[in-house]
Amino acid sequence: MSCANRQAMGAAEVSTMDRQLRLAGERELSEFSQTLQQPAELNGDEPGRTTSTKPSFFSVLDTREPPSLWHDLAASVRSAVSRCRSEYSSSPLRCIVSALRSLFPILRWGSSYDLKSFRSDLLAGLTLASLGIPQSIGYANLAKLDPQYGLYTSLVPPLIYALMGSSREIAIGPVAVVSLLLSSMIREVVDPSTDPVAYRKIVFTATFFAGIFQVAFGFLRLGFLVDFLSHAAIVGFMGGAAIVIGLQQLKGLLGISHFTNSTDVVSVTKAVWVALHEQWYPGNFMLGCSFLIFILITRFIGRKKKKLYWLPAIAPLLSVVMSTVLVFLTRADKHGVRTIQRVKGGLNPSSANQLRFRGPHVGESAKIGLVCAIIALAEAIAVGRSFASVKGYQLDGNREMVAMGFMNIAGSMSSCYVATGSFSRTAVNFSAGCKTSISNVVMAVTVFISLQFLTRLLYYTPYTILASIILSALPNLIDIREAYNIWEVDKMDFLACVGAFFGVLFGSVEIGLVVAIFISFTKIILNAIRPRIEVLGRIEGTNIFCSTRQYALATKLPTLLIVRIDSFFCFVNANFIRERITSWVLQENELLQEIPEKRIKSVIIDMSNVVDIDTSGIASLKEIHENLASLGIQLAIINPGWRVIQKMKLARVVEMIGGHWIFLTVGEAVEACLGKKDTGSIC
Amino acid sequence: MSCANRQAMGAAEVSTMDRQLRLAGERELSEFSQTLQQPAELNGDEPGRTTSTKPSFFSVLDTREPPSLWHDLAASVRSAVSRCRSEYSSSPLRCIVSALRSLFPILRWGSSYDLKSFRSDLLAGLTLASLGIPQSIGYANLAKLDPQYGLYTSLVPPLIYALMGSSREIAIGPVAVVSLLLSSMIREVVDPSTDPVAYRKIVFTATFFAGIFQVAFGFLRLGFLVDFLSHAAIVGFMGGAAIVIGLQQLKGLLGISHFTNSTDVVSVTKAVWVALHEQWYPGNFMLGCSFLIFILITRFIGRKKKKLYWLPAIAPLLSVVMSTVLVFLTRADKHGVRTIQRVKGGLNPSSANQLRFRGPHVGESAKIGLVCAIIALAEAIAVGRSFASVKGYQLDGNREMVAMGFMNIAGSMSSCYVATGSFSRTAVNFSAGCKTSISNVVMAVTVFISLQFLTRLLYYTPYTILASIILSALPNLIDIREAYNIWEVDKMDFLACVGAFFGVLFGSVEIGLVVAIFISFTKIILNAIRPRIEVLGRIEGTNIFCSTRQYALATKLPTLLIVRIDSFFCFVNANFIRERITSWVLQENELLQEIPEKRIKSVIIDMSNVVDIDTSGIASLKEIHENLASLGIQLAIINPGWRVIQKMKLARVVEMIGGHWIFLTVGEAVEACLGKKDTGSIC
Repeated sequence: MSCANRQAMGAAEVSTMDRQLRLAGERELSEFSQTLQQPAELNGDEPGRTTSTKPSFFSVLDTREPPSLWHDLAASVRSAVSRCRSEYSSSPLRCIVSALRSLFPILRWGSSYDLKSFRSDLLAGLTLASLGIPQSIGYANLAKLDPQYGLYTSLVPPLIYALMGSSREIAIGPVAVVSLLLSSMIREVVDPSTDPVAYRKIVFTATFFAGIFQVAFGFLRLGFLVDFLSHAAIVGFMGGAAIVIGLQQLKGLLGISHFTNSTDVVSVTKAVWVALHEQWYPGNFMLGCSFLIFILITRFIGRKKKKLYWLPAIAPLLSVVMSTVLVFLTRADKHGVRTIQRVKGGLNPSSANQLRFRGPHVGESAKIGLVCAIIALAEAIAVGRSFASVKGYQLDGNREMVAMGFMNIAGSMSSCYVATGSFSRTAVNFSAGCKTSISNVVMAVTVFISLQFLTRLLYYTPYTILASIILSALPNLIDIREAYNIWEVDKMDFLACVGAFFGVLFGSVEIGLVVAIFISFTKIILNAIRPRIEVLGRIEGTNIFCSTRQYALATKLPTLLIVRIDSFFCFVNANFIRERITSWVLQENELLQEIPEKRIKSVIIDMSNVVDIDTSGIASLKEIHENLASLGIQLAIINPGWRVIQKMKLARVVEMIGGHWIFLTVGEAVEACLGKKDTGSIC
Repeated sequence: MSCANRQAMGAAEVSTMDRQLRLAGERELSEFSQTLQQPAELNGDEPGRTTSTKPSFFSVLDTREPPSLWHDLAASVRSAVSRCRSEYSSSPLRCIVSALRSLFPILRWGSSYDLKSFRSDLLAGLTLASLGIPQSIGYANLAKLDPQYGLYTSLVPPLIYALMGSSREIAIGPVAVVSLLLSSMIREVVDPSTDPVAYRKIVFTATFFAGIFQVAFGFLRLGFLVDFLSHAAIVGFMGGAAIVIGLQQLKGLLGISHFTNSTDVVSVTKAVWVALHEQWYPGNFMLGCSFLIFILITRFIGRKKKKLYWLPAIAPLLSVVMSTVLVFLTRADKHGVRTIQRVKGGLNPSSANQLRFRGPHVGESAKIGLVCAIIALAEAIAVGRSFASVKGYQLDGNREMVAMGFMNIAGSMSSCYVATGSFSRTAVNFSAGCKTSISNVVMAVTVFISLQFLTRLLYYTPYTILASIILSALPNLIDIREAYNIWEVDKMDFLACVGAFFGVLFGSVEIGLVVAIFISFTKIILNAIRPRIEVLGRIEGTNIFCSTRQYALATKLPTLLIVRIDSFFCFVNANFIRERITSWVLQENELLQEIPEKRIKSVIIDMSNVVDIDTSGIASLKEIHENLASLGIQLAIINPGWRVIQKMKLARVVEMIGGHWIFLTVGEAVEACLGKKDTGSIC
């Protein structure tokens, strides 16, 4: 790495003041080395000493003790606590106020909320509702619940979020992927078609657990757990989920009555194949396809003319209305077009009594809750962050999690299932020019009204329309361009992406997730295993040392082997590095058997990039030193990180190698090794 | 990290030629920046250009394309192949010779082998045999096999290894841990007491698989797989295994007939407790303990007087002889002292026909073989390496694996179970002054003779003696001092060590292994998750920038935030780093609301230590840039690694930030940001 920094020195060297400079360097260096002679200094700090004007000369051996892992953890916890506390000033009243303000951001901006922004929020909210209501019904169908549960989920959670959330654009409600996840995971426990009541109980319990997990993540600042799903993995996962959801919609689109429960491509295609040979109703297909095409056309127009953004937004509602009227007039339901029929109206009933915290399925509910919580958060935070950065403000991930958590806990007690921020609806909300989360409130109110008065009108609405509405929303989830970018930039990431994709497609949603996470972590481990060790050479006329692989100009120096270790020096690569170095030395010296004066006499290991080391690394460092010593070769170490030098001291490696053979720059080490200055003076 | 390197520049800066230098620096810098103006150069390389005398000025953006993961893999394979080929010169005859020489190292040193070294090998071999024969019988008992199988295993594998192995000290034969591993894993498939024949078949099949795996590791140069067991994990594992083995010996020591099959502490202690309340024979205990004490005393003497090294070595044989005679004279076997009785004599019978490659248990056999292969290799290579480094020669790990593999394959066909290098016997062999692996041959011959003529004498040998011999060998496996060192140097490593220890103790041998490997890899992942991001400050009067946490002297510069990222910038820490940087900026600027001229105007990210980055890292780098831009703050990047800069180019981040805001050293960036030189000139 540090060619660059050395270039600075290089500049000095090539300049005419070269010699004086080097002499100065020597003076300082010898001071530095003398300080190394007192073994006491190897361990203890000397604050008095570090007040000199050249503290960096003690930097290699005479550093503060680095914070341990435990210390770091403690510090992060403390910072979390203090951060909470800092928000509460001394006086109890202001303390409560600031506490409320931090929990309910609406209290911050509510006072300055004016009619003008309400007008835009009203418009955005209505647009949102016109898209949200049909989608909610569709997603409820995807989650194997009755239509009203989708509407319930678009009512309570948005209200809670409007009070607690800090994003202004995000649109809360049921989303496709979470609905699929929920149904596909719970279906393995209870079959919704045979025992819908037990199924619902598990849905609400899982939702409750999801909320609890999200709140816990937020308060414990475990936001990073969401990061375990790497960006690449999410892209692949979403793509696969979209296709699976699309396949599920074939049931509605074709009006098939008997359909498979499993979500993987193979069994779904098989089921469709079978169904096509049984009787199915072309009516459904015709109706669905025509309205799907209609919706897609409106979206195309919306893309072309930005002013017509509302057209794709209301298209789903339009097609619901039109198809319902159509079915009503043609009595198509008599001819095999399956319709929703009765939808229970009225406000969310309480479901608190349906939560089950004992009995056989609690474990599964918790597990399902955890998975849903993470996926929901991943989607919501991705959406929120992207729109926040467009408007140029920050989202506190942990606070968002708390808000999402409370909204889902509240939801689980009012007959809602897991809600989160939806890609498509948030985009609509944004382009409809929402100013604050009041647009969510407006949507919730609209949903409330329709629940009260309009559910009866859904009697003739055909399922196939819901299918086509869901299908029309899927293209947003499949991001081929991003997948290509990932391929272009990082092949391993692409592997994770593809793994998640095919895992979801041919296995199940969970398998997809597991594969993605597994590959992502394998990547980290590979990154540690993959030994990064470079031979360095000097660039002519300068004191710059660079990888001979990277720079054609860098030429090795006679009688020296200079290597740089570029990774976490740990058990998976320690032996490799040791063998590599010793074998390089042996090969070189075999080649140079004729010319003994040119044989390698010293090995310089640049450890500037070794951020950390473990006992295996230490052990192999000792072994390298022993092997070289047995060959009569001198070992010099360059500038290890402060954790590394600490461990080298503790393991007595510093004493073993000799403090005066640990240098600040390769240049100094080279001079010492080539004996330009007699090493006696610095020993 | 690069304080050290910057110190070089610092030296320049503090020197009187400071100004001229900086001017020179500016000249070069502006040249450098001008070259960045041609966007063409951002992507394409210009080899012609890099022949200038200041190539490092192009190093940041104008590097060769780094090798991809696949390329690295291909290269390593190629090197392996070429390495094999390089050993074979052109002419076919010499080709064959060198091939044989590389497979059979004995051909290299055999010619120069003289009588003098044979004499010492003979002595060492006999000493080895006197220790090896009783141990082998004991370990066979531990592996739930009849005594002769232990002897078989000390006959064929040593011969093969003597021909193929490259270590001169290592003593081959059955060892305690592998014997335990084998019996405890196979016992879950077949119960040796009910169906010994099927049990043996699985033993031989597993041994065969172990050999195959070891050869494969060697040829495919997968030696690093063995490193997955970190040094710390092995220490813990060995300690736990030793205690478990010791507990197993209570059966023999107490002469208990009915004993538990599971190896964990709890059930063993329970079994012993129960047995003590049933009838047990104090005779066994008396006998065993007295001889155990005898052996331990001899070892103590051996430690004190190095010349009496042979005393502890022959003590086991002595105690076998004495105890056998004792039992014969007192007819103690009539009074409950359990004796070995009939041991089948004669040479190893072939067991090739007992290998099973179809049927129900093949999978298990392969799995068991893999585990045994890795444990055996870990032990053998550890032993071999440690003694090789004492004598100052190199061991080629991969070649050792091939030798071990062939020796186990041969063993599996001649009624042997998995053999490897033993700690205790190798130490004896070494201190007995062995010169070459001929000492193994001598031992094998001795074993052969005793198999032919002396097995009948074992009739009256009590089992309790075998128990005490095994017990006496265990202390070597428990290395408390090393465990303490690990604790001192690296807490996470210690956790792996303890995990393995308790996993073996309270779970099973496999659980211990899994725990150890799991913790070891968790360590790597934690190392990546654990965000290493430091705020840098300038040391007064120099141009050195160091962590303000590490150096009290380093003071922040007004209107600047300088941070250094010290880890693999990837999905697990990308968001954290992004949030940390942006929150630092926001906090600073909140504090400085009164004095706007002091607020942060530029952020400098030193990426010298970022060896690699993934798409999430790239994404968060983009986000950081956008967030800062929306706050009107300038971002500057310092010296990213060549893989990083490559990916930054591919992802268009370089164009986004602007090539002229990517610097070589923090010093230059600071100057550019503080506008000491008007940035216009370099833009």
